[in-house]
Amino acid sequence: MATTQTRRRADAERNIAAILDAALVSFTEDPQASMAAIARAAGVGRVTLYAHFPSREVLLEAVLDRTIAAAGEVIEKVTPGEGPATDALRRLLQSSWHELDQHRKLFDLAQRELGATRLRQRHREVVDHVESLLVRGQQEGVFRSDLPMAWLVTTVYSLLHAAADDVNAGRLAAEEAAGVLEATLLPALASR
Amino acid sequence: MATTQTRRRADAERNIAAILDAALVSFTEDPQASMAAIARAAGVGRVTLYAHFPSREVLLEAVLDRTIAAAGEVIEKVTPGEGPATDALRRLLQSSWHELDQHRKLFDLAQRELGATRLRQRHREVVDHVESLLVRGQQEGVFRSDLPMAWLVTTVYSLLHAAADDVNAGRLAAEEAAGVLEATLLPALASR
Repeated sequence: MATTQTRRRADAERNIAAILDAALVSFTEDPQASMAAIARAAGVGRVTLYAHFPSREVLLEAVLDRTIAAAGEVIEKVTPGEGPATDALRRLLQSSWHELDQHRKLFDLAQRELGATRLRQRHREVVDHVESLLVRGQQEGVFRSDLPMAWLVTTVYSLLHAAADDVNAGRLAAEEAAGVLEATLLPALASR
Repeated sequence: MATTQTRRRADAERNIAAILDAALVSFTEDPQASMAAIARAAGVGRVTLYAHFPSREVLLEAVLDRTIAAAGEVIEKVTPGEGPATDALRRLLQSSWHELDQHRKLFDLAQRELGATRLRQRHREVVDHVESLLVRGQQEGVFRSDLPMAWLVTTVYSLLHAAADDVNAGRLAAEEAAGVLEATLLPALASR
């Protein structure tokens, strides 16, 4: 039996979901998309939009967080914690690229609006998967231990995003990216 | 014997140099630095500033171009076209990092204001050195030929800039960066 309060909460959640869906599409199609345009696309009033997301930046961060959380779930499904570490890294790269490829334009916008440091901070969840796997591979002796762990994580993170930039700029075919990343990162990370 | 015209040209050149010097310092110390503040720091009027650089973006691009051109000259001095390609790559990485390290904040700002694609375009001059060296190393058989050349160039370019981001974010010590870049890039680029 829905009380007024639970009905209101359900309305709010529906609105938030509609806004995040609309914002993802809007930001991807037009990086300049205004809050007014996003409210229209979401079918909510501007007052409702601003009640949930007081600024364009807060909204962009929320869209990004949801996208990265979804990527984290996809990465978990390929079980990077299981099997030989090198094979697990291949699966992790494939699934990470697949997710990133779908949101290349969003990340390009986020890089500009939030800057490199804040964008990286918001990736904590996916970056943690990379770090755990690298640590496990070091313990197995297949990944190198001669460089700081933070740098090895940066190497994976930054080449993935560099591949997205290259696809955006027309320098790399999207279908080639996963293979090229694997061929570059495996020797860069391997122990000798 | 200076004519009025050559005197005027000399004045203009002096002003432009003063503006670019002041803008480099201002952008580095405060990414939000206004055109008015830069004019003040350069000791020129706002009218003069805008006559040479009609917008903040045009000014930022000019500062960036001058910085990258200077880096290109430093890289040339380490003669990347001479000696074994692997040794030449070490020298190129060392000198590139040295230049980039001095301008980490400027590049962070430029990445945000211009976006990844335009920032990369403005690096043509230094990126050409990387490409020539990689081609030479392929001919010598020491660098890999199994991946697109544009991607190998991206790998070098993006890891250099990722190191700058890591130093900016406090994840990597500036003194460690050149060594870490060399240790990562040599195996990533080596032929097998």
